[in-house]
Amino acid sequence: MSAVRSRRRGIGRPRQSTGIDARERLLDAALVLFAEHGAAGTTIAGIAAKAGVTAAMVHYYFRDRDHLLDAIAAERLLKTVSAVWAPVLETDDLVPMVRGLVQRILQATEVNPWLPSLWLREIVSEGGQLRDRLLKILPFEFVRHLVGTVASAQRRGTVDPRLEPRLMLLTVIGLTLLPLATIRLWQVVPIFEGVTRADVARHAEALLASALSAAPRRAPPS
Amino acid sequence: MSAVRSRRRGIGRPRQSTGIDARERLLDAALVLFAEHGAAGTTIAGIAAKAGVTAAMVHYYFRDRDHLLDAIAAERLLKTVSAVWAPVLETDDLVPMVRGLVQRILQATEVNPWLPSLWLREIVSEGGQLRDRLLKILPFEFVRHLVGTVASAQRRGTVDPRLEPRLMLLTVIGLTLLPLATIRLWQVVPIFEGVTRADVARHAEALLASALSAAPRRAPPS
Repeated sequence: MSAVRSRRRGIGRPRQSTGIDARERLLDAALVLFAEHGAAGTTIAGIAAKAGVTAAMVHYYFRDRDHLLDAIAAERLLKTVSAVWAPVLETDDLVPMVRGLVQRILQATEVNPWLPSLWLREIVSEGGQLRDRLLKILPFEFVRHLVGTVASAQRRGTVDPRLEPRLMLLTVIGLTLLPLATIRLWQVVPIFEGVTRADVARHAEALLASALSAAPRRAPPS
Repeated sequence: MSAVRSRRRGIGRPRQSTGIDARERLLDAALVLFAEHGAAGTTIAGIAAKAGVTAAMVHYYFRDRDHLLDAIAAERLLKTVSAVWAPVLETDDLVPMVRGLVQRILQATEVNPWLPSLWLREIVSEGGQLRDRLLKILPFEFVRHLVGTVASAQRRGTVDPRLEPRLMLLTVIGLTLLPLATIRLWQVVPIFEGVTRADVARHAEALLASALSAAPRRAPPS
């Protein structure tokens, strides 16, 4: 990656900060604010202030709010999602595949603390401002490989036929991003106090590994 | 339950509609609108219009927005949550306990179609307007019984010791309310097309039953 984008030259606007750094800082600032207050509750001026630049700089780099959201989806979310999902293609072995997924989701949320809350607010929630943008660019071949691997394990009889392959993605996410996104909420309830990220990881891995390697039971008579 | 509340007498305000019916209709209308647009996106006037009464009636029955939210939590959410959770106390047998929970959550969302979306928007999401209200009145002895039952099955060696008992509630919810709340979102993605409520129920039951009745594996060396 070149340190300075060509479009910066000749326009000569960004004076406060080196170009590419400011642009990256703006994307990072937006993600942190979106995770804290939601995209709808975050202004361009607020993003600029957090990144230490003027609002004019946001318009210089991203033109408008819509293009800023597109850039977040393409340059931040897609990168994170691909890092988590791409290695799925490297194996046809279901339990290690799902274990790896859980571990990489946990790692991704460690590197990008904004991820669980952003997922909950802007992707899963009705009206989330990153939902459609992410769905448009998501590399679904990874998910298709997971779905196919579950289905073929079921055909071989090594996985319970009552599991729904198409629900495995959401199952993995429900066991990782959902508790991570709501961990602060649960801390106020005495019964749940003290649950850690490590607990979430161990629980999700153990539950999925058990469920996906248990000898399938006979389906109940229909 | 008496058909007409005593406070209606003597004031003689609600003319458009029979008292208790209008009050119940207002609660129902609020839940439907909250599930569709979020509590923050729903006005008192909108609730009144949906229930077919004037905004003054909302103030007559609930005084203000805060008291309306309290009434929703106490009279609708608590009732629904208790119906789902109370039977948990009737057994110490983990797999039937969790199976029953899944089935009752599915039934509850059938009777109350607003439930999954309301859970996602107003309970789980940061800033949700019913979250604190529900946490204040939730009967946590049910959850405590589930947590205790998992823990004692682990002590007896019949459940994987790596599972986290305190995460079981969220696990059950993540396998039921999360997919139900987002089922419309997934329908636009070809890989997930056609997943039904029955698939969600069957998948959740099978996954939990397998995971909770599998002979525990040895924990990996620490």
